[in-house]
Amino acid sequence: MLGGAAMLQPAVALANAPQPESGADCEVGSKAVPFDGKHQAGVQTVPAAHLNVLGLNLRAGVGKKDAKRLLSLWTEDARRLTQGQNPLGSLEPEMVQHPSNLTITCGLGSRFFDIVDKQDQRPAWLKEDLQFSKDQLKPEWGQTDLVLQICCDDPVMLAFATRHMLRSGVDYVQQQWLQQGFLNAPGVKDPKATPRNLFGQKDGTVNPRSEDEFDQQVWIDGEDDAPAWLEGGSCLIVRRIAMNLDTWEQLDRESREIAIGRTLDSGAPLGQKDEFDQADYDKTDEYGLPYIDARSHMALASPPSDKPKEKLLRRAYNYDVPPNTGSEQLSNAGLVFCCYQKDPRKQFIPIQQRLNDGDRLNEWITHTGSAMYAIVPGTQEQGDEPYWAASLLEG
Amino acid sequence: MLGGAAMLQPAVALANAPQPESGADCEVGSKAVPFDGKHQAGVQTVPAAHLNVLGLNLRAGVGKKDAKRLLSLWTEDARRLTQGQNPLGSLEPEMVQHPSNLTITCGLGSRFFDIVDKQDQRPAWLKEDLQFSKDQLKPEWGQTDLVLQICCDDPVMLAFATRHMLRSGVDYVQQQWLQQGFLNAPGVKDPKATPRNLFGQKDGTVNPRSEDEFDQQVWIDGEDDAPAWLEGGSCLIVRRIAMNLDTWEQLDRESREIAIGRTLDSGAPLGQKDEFDQADYDKTDEYGLPYIDARSHMALASPPSDKPKEKLLRRAYNYDVPPNTGSEQLSNAGLVFCCYQKDPRKQFIPIQQRLNDGDRLNEWITHTGSAMYAIVPGTQEQGDEPYWAASLLEG
Repeated sequence: MLGGAAMLQPAVALANAPQPESGADCEVGSKAVPFDGKHQAGVQTVPAAHLNVLGLNLRAGVGKKDAKRLLSLWTEDARRLTQGQNPLGSLEPEMVQHPSNLTITCGLGSRFFDIVDKQDQRPAWLKEDLQFSKDQLKPEWGQTDLVLQICCDDPVMLAFATRHMLRSGVDYVQQQWLQQGFLNAPGVKDPKATPRNLFGQKDGTVNPRSEDEFDQQVWIDGEDDAPAWLEGGSCLIVRRIAMNLDTWEQLDRESREIAIGRTLDSGAPLGQKDEFDQADYDKTDEYGLPYIDARSHMALASPPSDKPKEKLLRRAYNYDVPPNTGSEQLSNAGLVFCCYQKDPRKQFIPIQQRLNDGDRLNEWITHTGSAMYAIVPGTQEQGDEPYWAASLLEG
Repeated sequence: MLGGAAMLQPAVALANAPQPESGADCEVGSKAVPFDGKHQAGVQTVPAAHLNVLGLNLRAGVGKKDAKRLLSLWTEDARRLTQGQNPLGSLEPEMVQHPSNLTITCGLGSRFFDIVDKQDQRPAWLKEDLQFSKDQLKPEWGQTDLVLQICCDDPVMLAFATRHMLRSGVDYVQQQWLQQGFLNAPGVKDPKATPRNLFGQKDGTVNPRSEDEFDQQVWIDGEDDAPAWLEGGSCLIVRRIAMNLDTWEQLDRESREIAIGRTLDSGAPLGQKDEFDQADYDKTDEYGLPYIDARSHMALASPPSDKPKEKLLRRAYNYDVPPNTGSEQLSNAGLVFCCYQKDPRKQFIPIQQRLNDGDRLNEWITHTGSAMYAIVPGTQEQGDEPYWAASLLEG
């Protein structure tokens, strides 16, 4: 168990910055990500191995006072759980001894602002009806009033933390969905290396990495079209993307690489050598054909030359769950695609519109769920924002 | 990726023995458990963090020749995958670079012996209809012709290996169910320590640990009532056990400990100090009441004094999946309880009969799935048993 000292560390601006470089983590169980800070943890934090995203609705009759109580309770619980400390009301101190880089990140859906009577504080971009023409959205993965993104390197701690948050909020919220995902286990590979998804594709090469890039792409500031209380926050979009491995695997490697626009082994743009080499869309092969297909996933996901700000943080996890009974599908797999940005109107939406319209990968992927949330700013235990969304709800 | 040397290591008797003591594993990705040996890996092997158990049925029209082809193909695939080598026909060498203690263990259900016309070689204990009075078995977790127990410390490698085995066998078998489970991640805690389940209970304290104990409880030999071809094999029972955390959590700690018969913190028998202390069923407290309730889980799971051989290997994994849509249950959790033994008539069945009839834990747990398999002996790439069940099928 962590000593008391870990709890007493002051919250600092770097609280949620990426962790130190390391090829593998030998004591992952005792690692705790600071909870308080300018931003919430779980966004800029290097993704832990396991993900539970909970979509929750406020119960009928819950109003502003209850919402304050809920977010205050949850903040206290998350602050303790992430530091390996037993939250109030828990009879199971043994279950929190291995925080394992646990993060718990809270976001608000559009209807939350109606319920707490703060319509004027709702960001203009927060919509309920994000749907593209090729989407096959299922209501069971749809919009909710609240979201908790819970990440942890240990699946047992993750299960306990998820359950504790649900139990703690049970008088105020009802769970609508739980989306579970995974990346490589701790100690398997360098946690800073780009993870592979189940298509074998390195997924997240162009993600922001520096503080500046996060400030430019992810964290809301005074320059952005958002209410002042949301400065330091972000916008999360959760898309569930089914990946048809059965038909994908009928392709040869070259066809797979053409659809993606990158090589499978190194992740380099086609025609280049290394993962982080710049793509050259004009480069042609010996027959005069472009290396990179204009309808490849990479080409369409990249910002157009006149809109260099169309970038965002991909924080996607794989899912692989049992196929429906009697199905002849070999697997039921895909991505819980969480992405973070300042303003979806300038980032996810135009990017996804291009992908929806032209991406070669659409033959093998289907968006089946969509929800959008305002990720509230970070908290300070003794400061102006003692609990999630305090400055929204106290105002 | 592993070098060629790892592949060339001779299969030795210790192949599947528990791994060296270590508190945490810094290079878990490159760890490979030897595939060939007297026994299959994945039984005596320290459980890896993640589990996929696949229940599969032979397709209509598949006969002995096809079954041989299937098991031969699967053995080759498993032999390569577990050593971090790309199996034949896979276009994704990048996906097998981190074997992460992968094991793939094969078992045969009762109907398999009918299909290959080897009824006389079916062990007498291999039944299809294991049901106790309190069971609420669902057909979707029922008996199948074949089972693959796939364990791995890395969930990405696990997903790839599971998928490859399914694809490789697709002409011969259809997946009936997939049961997924987890333990602590590598690096979180000592992998030799007894894991906790989601009741917070240390689960598996009395498991066999020494070679002698495995020989006495798990591995079939000439003394047991089983056909000769099965020597070196075992019997696997897979029970799906739902655990009602919502009502369990209404208990105070003392009531939980009474139901279990052990303390929650150390796992010691009530009235004792350490996890591995002998339980004293006659010991009474200051009021003359026994420390250990005769209907506690521990008391009923322990071998009666006149039947000291009623022991087995518990190799249980936690599951925690989304509740059904609209359910007011906070969680849908429990155990994928895999247990190994020489002869279920002398081990699992009498133990479970006692638990079914009297276990206090029955108020919070429900058995919802049951299946039984003959775990075939280990293989030798260049020996008499080049593939799973060769001596059964070649005879």
